[in-house]
Amino acid sequence: MVAGYAIGVDVGATKTSAGLIDTKGRVVREARNLTPKERGPFAIVDNMIVLAREVSAGVTPAEIAGVGVGVPAQVDFARQEIEFCTNLPLAGIDVRSLVGTGLRLPVTIDNDGNLAAFGECRYGAGRKVSDVLMVTLGTGVGGGMWLAGEPYRGARGLAAEFGHMVIDRNGPECTCGGRGHIEAYLGRPAIARRARSLAESFRGAALLEAAGGSLDLVDADALVAVARAGDEPSLEILRELGEVLGDALIGLVNAFNPRMVCIGGGIGEAADELVRVAADRVDTHALAGRKDVTVVQATLGNDAGILGAAALAFDQYAAREGFNL
Amino acid sequence: MVAGYAIGVDVGATKTSAGLIDTKGRVVREARNLTPKERGPFAIVDNMIVLAREVSAGVTPAEIAGVGVGVPAQVDFARQEIEFCTNLPLAGIDVRSLVGTGLRLPVTIDNDGNLAAFGECRYGAGRKVSDVLMVTLGTGVGGGMWLAGEPYRGARGLAAEFGHMVIDRNGPECTCGGRGHIEAYLGRPAIARRARSLAESFRGAALLEAAGGSLDLVDADALVAVARAGDEPSLEILRELGEVLGDALIGLVNAFNPRMVCIGGGIGEAADELVRVAADRVDTHALAGRKDVTVVQATLGNDAGILGAAALAFDQYAAREGFNL
Repeated sequence: MVAGYAIGVDVGATKTSAGLIDTKGRVVREARNLTPKERGPFAIVDNMIVLAREVSAGVTPAEIAGVGVGVPAQVDFARQEIEFCTNLPLAGIDVRSLVGTGLRLPVTIDNDGNLAAFGECRYGAGRKVSDVLMVTLGTGVGGGMWLAGEPYRGARGLAAEFGHMVIDRNGPECTCGGRGHIEAYLGRPAIARRARSLAESFRGAALLEAAGGSLDLVDADALVAVARAGDEPSLEILRELGEVLGDALIGLVNAFNPRMVCIGGGIGEAADELVRVAADRVDTHALAGRKDVTVVQATLGNDAGILGAAALAFDQYAAREGFNL
Repeated sequence: MVAGYAIGVDVGATKTSAGLIDTKGRVVREARNLTPKERGPFAIVDNMIVLAREVSAGVTPAEIAGVGVGVPAQVDFARQEIEFCTNLPLAGIDVRSLVGTGLRLPVTIDNDGNLAAFGECRYGAGRKVSDVLMVTLGTGVGGGMWLAGEPYRGARGLAAEFGHMVIDRNGPECTCGGRGHIEAYLGRPAIARRARSLAESFRGAALLEAAGGSLDLVDADALVAVARAGDEPSLEILRELGEVLGDALIGLVNAFNPRMVCIGGGIGEAADELVRVAADRVDTHALAGRKDVTVVQATLGNDAGILGAAALAFDQYAAREGFNL
């Protein structure tokens, strides 16, 4: 019997999602909750297992190709080890074995940006496109690459850490200790600081009101939501951030000559104005490769991560069993 | 009879070189002169033909696999067209046909940075290494990539334009019209400006003296030469530029997770101190991928370009004839 499902788990700094996905890339069942980051690494792992069990209830193990897990970390893919994780205490934790033992299923881990890119390339915006760069804007800024029709992970699976490109060597400090990295502008905490500073001023009235009048509730998502509703001061901030993203994309487009740059993650998919400005900037300032590339927003929403994780599990299963699904 | 030689031509903004290369990557004969850029595109092409004839005199066409030509330009590799060329008037010129007609041999053109990278990867510093990024520091700043053991050209052969990555979005203007690109710091004209400003000051006495006392003769190569001789003020400039290069490499190492970054080009191979500082910076500030990567200077010197061009010609020949050389 050929397995008809895979489980995709997507661990974010804020939320964890799991999905039961069929071979056509449909999300059959999905569950999501808050990542219990304050309770430490084992609580985070336990939570993955609980969610995976929940979505696969009633399906026999033989029907399940395996489990893919995306983590917001640098992952040594060949060794299946987590090297470096800014936003969760997972560095050095053997997530693959722990989840595998808990679920009694084969597990493969990868960087969440890689998996969101695989999801978008297999089932979403990048379907049938080769040479796709995905940049994910969320709590962190990550990414994934799909070059010449294949996932590209680099020497040891650590590639596509686009968040830590230097865009202004005299710029603000990044969570990783570097300076002027794009995450220092475009990560949720950085956007939230801009949002709060706007909300404190007269021009930020709409933003403050949307946060129920509480400055503590003003965050990146609130800014994006108010901008979508047409608030000009919020739109101005998104345009400014769009120029920063655009400058980073110019470097990437010149380096990779991709067919598509796909902007995903919670912020990337919602902040239309930011992406529009970034796309314009690439179109004006990148070298000849600008003619080849389209800058688009991801289409799979929050599902990109679990879909990519499931695609990885299907691929690993097919490789083990020696056939194509 | 299997062809035992290929002709490699390397057209730089300053000099043009041609070499007759054997299948083991040995330079059997070589010729070089100044690129006649002021006399227009056809003089530049004629010059390539003259040099190629010179190095292949006495060898029959059947012994020659073909000709590879590297140009300092964005090249649409599939179409064999020159798209964009900052430093020479070659954009839109059908170099492949013109040289092919002149020599009656099959010609393949490519970006010079790509070819220098192929040369270094096939015969030089990157021999037997996969996932190599090459950054060439010359009049312009270019590059090439060798990913997962194959040349990577991107969607249309325009990849690896590392010179036009934004490293300081508020930085100086670049020859291409952008702002804060690494070429605006590390191209020969930018380094020459720094050198002249040093030579005008009291601390620049050694540099000015090395240029025969003439400020007009103070250029990037003079600065590098004086630094190599131990001149502290010149070394300081190279260290500062090394930090700029290092910041650019941090972005590239985080994005590609390569095994090797190879710094080539006339400036890159001579400016040891610049490369040392850049390597240190990568080692301190790149993410986990810093453990995988070695930053080295290219070893093939000026021959990287003609060797890579010949390697391309051999590969194209083998593909046409259907065998491996």
